[in-house]
Amino acid sequence: MTDSVYSSYPPDLSAAQQEFLVTAVKDWAIQNGLAVRPSPAIVPPGTDSNGVLATNAPVTLFPSPFPRTCFQEATALQSIYNELYAAITCDTEWLGNIVEGLIEVDDFVANLWKVHLAVQKEGYVQNLSLGLFRSDYMAHVAPTGAPSLKQVEFNTISASFGGLSALVRELHNDLLTVPPGSSINYPSHPLLQSSTPPENTAVETLAAGLAEAHKAYGASKSTPALPLCVLFVVQKEERNVFDQHALSKQLKTFHKIPVFRVSSVDVLDQTSISGSNPSRPLLYQPPHSPDSTFEVTTVYLRAYYAPDEYKSSRDWEARTHLERSAAIKCPSVLNQLAGCKKVQQVLAEPTGPDHLSSFLKGADPSLVERVRETFAPQYDLSTNSRGRELALNPDTAMNHVLKPQREGGGNNIYKSEIPEFLRSIPESDWRGWVLMELINPAPSAQNVALRNDGEVLRGNVISELGVYGTILWDNSGKVLHNDQGGYLLRTKGKEVNEGGVAAGFSSLDSVLLF
Amino acid sequence: MTDSVYSSYPPDLSAAQQEFLVTAVKDWAIQNGLAVRPSPAIVPPGTDSNGVLATNAPVTLFPSPFPRTCFQEATALQSIYNELYAAITCDTEWLGNIVEGLIEVDDFVANLWKVHLAVQKEGYVQNLSLGLFRSDYMAHVAPTGAPSLKQVEFNTISASFGGLSALVRELHNDLLTVPPGSSINYPSHPLLQSSTPPENTAVETLAAGLAEAHKAYGASKSTPALPLCVLFVVQKEERNVFDQHALSKQLKTFHKIPVFRVSSVDVLDQTSISGSNPSRPLLYQPPHSPDSTFEVTTVYLRAYYAPDEYKSSRDWEARTHLERSAAIKCPSVLNQLAGCKKVQQVLAEPTGPDHLSSFLKGADPSLVERVRETFAPQYDLSTNSRGRELALNPDTAMNHVLKPQREGGGNNIYKSEIPEFLRSIPESDWRGWVLMELINPAPSAQNVALRNDGEVLRGNVISELGVYGTILWDNSGKVLHNDQGGYLLRTKGKEVNEGGVAAGFSSLDSVLLF
Repeated sequence: MTDSVYSSYPPDLSAAQQEFLVTAVKDWAIQNGLAVRPSPAIVPPGTDSNGVLATNAPVTLFPSPFPRTCFQEATALQSIYNELYAAITCDTEWLGNIVEGLIEVDDFVANLWKVHLAVQKEGYVQNLSLGLFRSDYMAHVAPTGAPSLKQVEFNTISASFGGLSALVRELHNDLLTVPPGSSINYPSHPLLQSSTPPENTAVETLAAGLAEAHKAYGASKSTPALPLCVLFVVQKEERNVFDQHALSKQLKTFHKIPVFRVSSVDVLDQTSISGSNPSRPLLYQPPHSPDSTFEVTTVYLRAYYAPDEYKSSRDWEARTHLERSAAIKCPSVLNQLAGCKKVQQVLAEPTGPDHLSSFLKGADPSLVERVRETFAPQYDLSTNSRGRELALNPDTAMNHVLKPQREGGGNNIYKSEIPEFLRSIPESDWRGWVLMELINPAPSAQNVALRNDGEVLRGNVISELGVYGTILWDNSGKVLHNDQGGYLLRTKGKEVNEGGVAAGFSSLDSVLLF
Repeated sequence: MTDSVYSSYPPDLSAAQQEFLVTAVKDWAIQNGLAVRPSPAIVPPGTDSNGVLATNAPVTLFPSPFPRTCFQEATALQSIYNELYAAITCDTEWLGNIVEGLIEVDDFVANLWKVHLAVQKEGYVQNLSLGLFRSDYMAHVAPTGAPSLKQVEFNTISASFGGLSALVRELHNDLLTVPPGSSINYPSHPLLQSSTPPENTAVETLAAGLAEAHKAYGASKSTPALPLCVLFVVQKEERNVFDQHALSKQLKTFHKIPVFRVSSVDVLDQTSISGSNPSRPLLYQPPHSPDSTFEVTTVYLRAYYAPDEYKSSRDWEARTHLERSAAIKCPSVLNQLAGCKKVQQVLAEPTGPDHLSSFLKGADPSLVERVRETFAPQYDLSTNSRGRELALNPDTAMNHVLKPQREGGGNNIYKSEIPEFLRSIPESDWRGWVLMELINPAPSAQNVALRNDGEVLRGNVISELGVYGTILWDNSGKVLHNDQGGYLLRTKGKEVNEGGVAAGFSSLDSVLLF
């Protein structure tokens, strides 16, 4: 079944069909906020000095087929994955052991750990943490048998695209079904006639998580009491603003919670912690309303996730400032560190202590085994071991990817490049990297993408499914809220994974389950 | 009251307040489809060859104060105005007399009339007509007394901005009220604290009008029966597409009616009338689905309203082709002609036959008088008369505007330029123009506009209120549907009305009633 689904999909498009679909998608995207601010490659500097222009987010013209069993399994496992990463974050000693093995080779991890140590020394004043997570998977196709779900990575900070991916699902659904009974937007194809993408509640789920934290914060810790708000900390030159606005709109209009945005570079200017209040409430002074002061219940980070965001000690100071405040952090520094690739590798380790079962000791053992089933084989490179063998042998390297401790793409080393890369860096740095067996998605999957410069590309693709989850817990490990909902399908031109980005694409997509 | 409202409004903005509001408005606009495609002045040719970029529609940062009595009167009179223009359209003889007086001096009117004569000769096959109208007014401030409602013009073709003006109302309402109880988007001001713009149902009203026509068309006139659709005829290089998409989305998703768009230049290629079917159904063949044929119940014109859209005889052929078909036209050629400024002037004529009462003979006489109250004094220039005196005397000219028989702005001659202009054209052409007394809106009204290139302009403004109405009637004068709902407030920098466009602005706005 799997092969035949992919090999005949998507249907061919005549020039007129493609023109129609592209126009429909371009216009739908702007009408509905499925948009991004354009990059300098699209709008040369000097052209739009007031920053008014927008373009469609990169999207596929068709939804992509995805095995129903894998989609359902990813959804079914999100709550226990939430618990797992909350438990890891609570176990400071265990996490510290892993982090300490990385400190010498990874400045970024070392600096994050220092923030934790500094706040720990002073004493934390907030024992609640909020996670807005996204667990990313591929549907792995083995030579025989059904496709299986394999985890690519688990994101604990700034997991993005919840807002836009819900819109892509609406886009594809509208193209498939509007007007009811007589939609001719797509050429006829059995899969397009029999199915629509499942509902995508990413916006509702993620906003509800933030709203839970806001509520759990309780009353103002200031005297006199101040009005409360949620604060989004964002990058100064963010182009993906509409993804973030989808969440703040839901928080403001549905949950009726004040939400403000502050650039990470402005955190120290626009927020403060009174030296005389031992509860350390985080105060926000909106520059546009200098007479108002709000107390921040929840800091939602859409910044501070990558090393290049910390340009000077002032940025580390700002991160520490937020961390020591009474605001609930989404995520805390410890929760961000729990997202290291090294943690994922240690959990997947087939020999030695069964960390996974320890962290999930209250859970149904069969569920724990289903979590373990999603791990792809991954290896430590710190000592002479199986991992080094596989990485240095050109034949076995072809089946692997080498990952540093970073969120987001662009940092990985693939296949034949692995042995050469390892030999180019000191052996003492190898421990900073994790070797992971490549997951094999359906080889004949294809789609057509509309890039955000309007170019249309058709080709072989790899799709990655992300499932969103939210969890609120206290540092004793007690869980106050645990929810999952919504998904992201990100579909990339195959050559992107080989490191060649120029001709490729990475698009937001939705799923047709089969 | 009136003066004091305008003189203290809108509140001043600090640099930080303005930056905040501008960012909020820019982002809200793209998130919610309050957008236009950018002009070449913003995106130079060659930069966006695939046409993906969009920008915010030009909008005011604040809603504008507008007298409640005038707003209510405009709303109350829309249904009888609908009837009036339906009745005029039905009275071919009366309309023909007016048109024949213009034929020698106005080629465009002459050519439209020829289309009617050609179809009349062959015989019309559709006796229903649909009007999607917008009646435009100003609130006239007399030296003493309350402000009064005066009509600027009545639009019978391509009345636009229903889709976007509903969004501007939402924008201003969100800025005023979200999150509930603690909105600090605007600086404090009594008017902004006490009031929100009235609901704007333009999209629902206009789409419901089209849906009524679609239903009234009845069964397919083809054998075998074909699926039915509504067809939007649009300009090829339309930048205001999202305004139109707001209506088609409502038609497709709420009314579940198939809607297609065809450029006016493609009408003859993509639609046809079978020579062998005396009912002359209009058939539409979507290029993206060549195996499908739809029968068009209703042709909605967002094109063909200005002379420069008819580049060759082929365009007149296309217009005639639509007119002779069985599709219900919105508007018919006759209904378009009923929108001539000359018709408005003849209705307002204080001496001679009372045309207004004749057309509205079934209506409550007091309502008819309220319609008459909205007429500003206007004069015929075809003979030596009061109109010529007022136009040629530089003193009295200062209080007037000279209008040709056109929809839309940019064609009028104002004040001191009138005598000179009239002397520059042959006296025999004067009859093509109507002299209208200027309406005096509140002199101290101000607002701040965000242009679609992101420039922010503050200054004295003139606001024009448009009220939308829809009516479906047959050519015996029987009315099948008559509705009103939704409004447009268009706010212009004062210098625009003097002919200087470069430094000015014309923005979409909403109303705060006082």
